[in-house]
Amino acid sequence: MEESNMTQRDPAAAVADGLSSWNDGAAKRALVEFITRVTEQGSPDFVPPLERIAVFDNDGTLWVEQPLYVQAFFVLDRISALAPQHPEWRETEPFASVLKGDLPAALAGGESAIVELVMATHAGMTTEEFEQVAVDWIATARHPLTGRLHTEMVYQPMLELLTCLRANGFTIWIASAGGIEFMRPWTERVYGIPRENVIGSSIKTKYELRDGRPVLVRLPELNFLGDKAGKPVGIQQHIGRRPIAAFGNSDGDFEMLEWVTSGAGLRIGLFVHHDDAVREFAYERGAVTGHFDRGLAEASGRGWIVVSMKRDWRKVFPG
Amino acid sequence: MEESNMTQRDPAAAVADGLSSWNDGAAKRALVEFITRVTEQGSPDFVPPLERIAVFDNDGTLWVEQPLYVQAFFVLDRISALAPQHPEWRETEPFASVLKGDLPAALAGGESAIVELVMATHAGMTTEEFEQVAVDWIATARHPLTGRLHTEMVYQPMLELLTCLRANGFTIWIASAGGIEFMRPWTERVYGIPRENVIGSSIKTKYELRDGRPVLVRLPELNFLGDKAGKPVGIQQHIGRRPIAAFGNSDGDFEMLEWVTSGAGLRIGLFVHHDDAVREFAYERGAVTGHFDRGLAEASGRGWIVVSMKRDWRKVFPG
Repeated sequence: MEESNMTQRDPAAAVADGLSSWNDGAAKRALVEFITRVTEQGSPDFVPPLERIAVFDNDGTLWVEQPLYVQAFFVLDRISALAPQHPEWRETEPFASVLKGDLPAALAGGESAIVELVMATHAGMTTEEFEQVAVDWIATARHPLTGRLHTEMVYQPMLELLTCLRANGFTIWIASAGGIEFMRPWTERVYGIPRENVIGSSIKTKYELRDGRPVLVRLPELNFLGDKAGKPVGIQQHIGRRPIAAFGNSDGDFEMLEWVTSGAGLRIGLFVHHDDAVREFAYERGAVTGHFDRGLAEASGRGWIVVSMKRDWRKVFPG
Repeated sequence: MEESNMTQRDPAAAVADGLSSWNDGAAKRALVEFITRVTEQGSPDFVPPLERIAVFDNDGTLWVEQPLYVQAFFVLDRISALAPQHPEWRETEPFASVLKGDLPAALAGGESAIVELVMATHAGMTTEEFEQVAVDWIATARHPLTGRLHTEMVYQPMLELLTCLRANGFTIWIASAGGIEFMRPWTERVYGIPRENVIGSSIKTKYELRDGRPVLVRLPELNFLGDKAGKPVGIQQHIGRRPIAAFGNSDGDFEMLEWVTSGAGLRIGLFVHHDDAVREFAYERGAVTGHFDRGLAEASGRGWIVVSMKRDWRKVFPG
């Protein structure tokens, strides 16, 4: 195509071309229309670049969350790795069941069991030490069903959407219930999202000197839980302005979509619906992951888009 | 100057030219050398743009903090403005003393009195309502001694430093003990620092629906205190990587400078020393504001720069 044609080309067509793994349909049309309208100079829906903020959930929205959240695999692997230093775990729940590979028994203790497992694997070290552990783990950890690296189990259509939004002046943030410091070591490489644009759950840290060297020590105490109504709270804390686009896949993202799409001006809210048992998973209620009930029931009344993985995605994974 | 000369020009000279309100001297030389070395391709000290992060304290570093922190003036004005809705304040400390204009008596209650005053003026409304209050106040509030707007009582040499760092690929963050939502409404306009790059103290917020409209309600409960050892904690929480440059003016910034300058590679830490009683204020110990004892004593041993306002700044305020 000649340059003169390029520059005069329909902007919507250029956006659509960037979303080549999306089948033509209502979801793709809505995305293209939204991006075109907020970026077109002189459009009544024009949004200046500083306000072009999009927030993405991570688990189930950018990468696979079945049969377990990736961070849960991390916890289980770390319990095994740390077990030799904790002989008492062989006799203590929930650790004993984890070490026997009996996850349902380990989780029988409910939320307090999860907190114990998380704190045993995420606290008691410096931020730099934890970063190294996370970096080493993510470099080799593989999905139990496909054998691919977790960082390859990301959704190609969503990667294209990230690229397309960035090309149109958007700043992309992650707003996840996952651990902020678990995600930061790899979001830049995998999604092109720099670590300062990651919002997530966190534990408290404490500044102290160790052998005269300052460190931040990770404490076994919750600082912030970035799920459900916590998502708008985290978004305000980190960004300080209301995004204009929100992408999720479960009721854990409901309040985020509600917050984002209730602002003034043109907004978009989108759920990925996992309805593709052949190429990925089909579920509205994961065994461990969040439900997608209210969001599915209310999306159309609220003008939110529900993406059918099966129908709307030409391709699910890269490569 | 011809273009060919411009492009071949000594980069250090270009940086120095941008700092025209800085007198020639050790402080300016150190700044120019640091910026030049970390930005020069092929330099052993080269830092890629994503890692070029500079953090600035606000009160006393970017704008005047005497005779009171600006946010303290805000609190006092808000107490007066809200008093008609709180007749009980006439009889209740610390409010009664504030309304009588007797600040020392109001502060006699120590930290708990300050917390009461802050919560009475910062909590109990939505984030949007608070933003509007802050925007309206900062638009007209004036410094009691000079009659200038507080936003004009910013340091011209520091504004030039912000511009110079940005021109050299740095991302600038504020790391202040002041309220994050008190600063955000005006940092973009006054400093060119967007609201997502502001770190500060905060109170908790709660997501809820009011008449079907989602809001974030500000609760009278501390969420985060961004002073002293809290500064590195807030920096890690928001940025997730260690900055390479830190600028402060009191012992409240000590840990921030320590954290930043103890990282690997070339680093810079700088204190503004308020030693200019003629053009600004001369103090190491403010009546209400923080002390500058340890920082002043240890700066030279730690390789930190102490800027003498009197000697190093050709000009203090813009205009």
